[in-house]
Amino acid sequence: MRFVKGHGTENDFVLIPPDESTELTPETVRALCDRRRGIGADGVLGVIRTNGDDDVRWFMDYRNADGSIAEMCGNGVRVFARFLVTEGYEPPGHLRIGTRDGVKDVDVSAEGDITVDMGEALRLEDAKVTIGGATYAARGWSMGNPHLVVLDAGDPARLDLTSAPVIDSGYASGANVEFVERLGPSHLRMRVHERGVGETRSCGTGACAAAVAGMDVAGDRTTYIVDVPGGRLMVEWRADGRVLLTGPAVLVSRGETEMSAD
Amino acid sequence: MRFVKGHGTENDFVLIPPDESTELTPETVRALCDRRRGIGADGVLGVIRTNGDDDVRWFMDYRNADGSIAEMCGNGVRVFARFLVTEGYEPPGHLRIGTRDGVKDVDVSAEGDITVDMGEALRLEDAKVTIGGATYAARGWSMGNPHLVVLDAGDPARLDLTSAPVIDSGYASGANVEFVERLGPSHLRMRVHERGVGETRSCGTGACAAAVAGMDVAGDRTTYIVDVPGGRLMVEWRADGRVLLTGPAVLVSRGETEMSAD
Repeated sequence: MRFVKGHGTENDFVLIPPDESTELTPETVRALCDRRRGIGADGVLGVIRTNGDDDVRWFMDYRNADGSIAEMCGNGVRVFARFLVTEGYEPPGHLRIGTRDGVKDVDVSAEGDITVDMGEALRLEDAKVTIGGATYAARGWSMGNPHLVVLDAGDPARLDLTSAPVIDSGYASGANVEFVERLGPSHLRMRVHERGVGETRSCGTGACAAAVAGMDVAGDRTTYIVDVPGGRLMVEWRADGRVLLTGPAVLVSRGETEMSAD
Repeated sequence: MRFVKGHGTENDFVLIPPDESTELTPETVRALCDRRRGIGADGVLGVIRTNGDDDVRWFMDYRNADGSIAEMCGNGVRVFARFLVTEGYEPPGHLRIGTRDGVKDVDVSAEGDITVDMGEALRLEDAKVTIGGATYAARGWSMGNPHLVVLDAGDPARLDLTSAPVIDSGYASGANVEFVERLGPSHLRMRVHERGVGETRSCGTGACAAAVAGMDVAGDRTTYIVDVPGGRLMVEWRADGRVLLTGPAVLVSRGETEMSAD
């Protein structure tokens, strides 16, 4: 099986090219993502040619490392678009990529960052979040998934996120929690605890929620830099309500594997 | 840069083929071993052709993931030998591989396990080891590096090895500590805390020390099965004092990478 490995702000993926006939069973996905016995990744991106007659020529078949199906991933779709351009399937420019969460509009430059239209941010109810014995007010925002954004956490580096933050009310199915420090008028730094996962190096929807919450409190709609542990993202909240996420995507290696050998 | 990725009982390595001119600087090693921005591994094995006139035709240039130089690795030398045979540099059979710890004798079958002569086990002083509030007697053995073997730990799965075991006396430079449960007359199960590293999925010298300590107490020299978290190893303590370690080595993928892209 041929593969390409890539990452966006250290959220990493194994991509399976479109001419591979491999069936992505949960077992295959788990074997590919195993960081010692396999190639190692947070997830697999199957590159599916749609053969449609419209402008959506590719479908991103995204699987989590545990083999389960996921709808969308803001870092994954950038790596997916980088693959299409670098491997010669599409020229740089505007791409429309099908996902289980609908069609995503992506702008790919030949070398630099990639911008994804992440849709509209929706206001959710606020809550209080407790971590390490301290309780913080958190602002609720949805980017398709629920987020609670703590804007006055101070330096997030000092927090211990090895256990999940406790949410006081609402959010029976949990929420991603962002701990944000404002470094400047349009510059945030954050760490994120993803529900059901734990702390991650980067969360695309979390960066969007953090920036939107910060802009909402400041009363402006502009572009923010959001530093996450895995790198730097840019979030634009447009006047029409849509949120654009811009960030790097890098292909690291390409090769072939015989996972059956193990 | 071309690479091959492989593992032995989940101790995993990036191998750099002998015709690659890449210099293994600490920066390059760290970039290759990064599990999200690179290929990801516990270490790098540079495959060096020695061009000598004797039967030692290959040198294993082993580097830790942090870029430092290490002398030897019982799992690494198996993966190194598997590479030489599978990639067609040597036929299956007996190989003599140079390392910074001297020449190692290795027997490679075409498909199955690989046996490495790990040298002689030397008795060291005993000590007491404390972990999780309980203190155990531990037997000291050297396999080139110091080990303290706890033979009466019960089921090692219940231990919390996230912090280092405390050694009561001697061993100022620390020691690897093995927690061993006897499952049968010639069958052990163990977990290992490696000094300066933490718990690992497998430790070749640790498996040898555990088996030798178990045989020494039982008063026999034979072959033991040693189950480690990453798989199954076999240890033979020969009448001449030498210890032979047998275990799997698997090549997982091969490809090319442009680490400079990141």
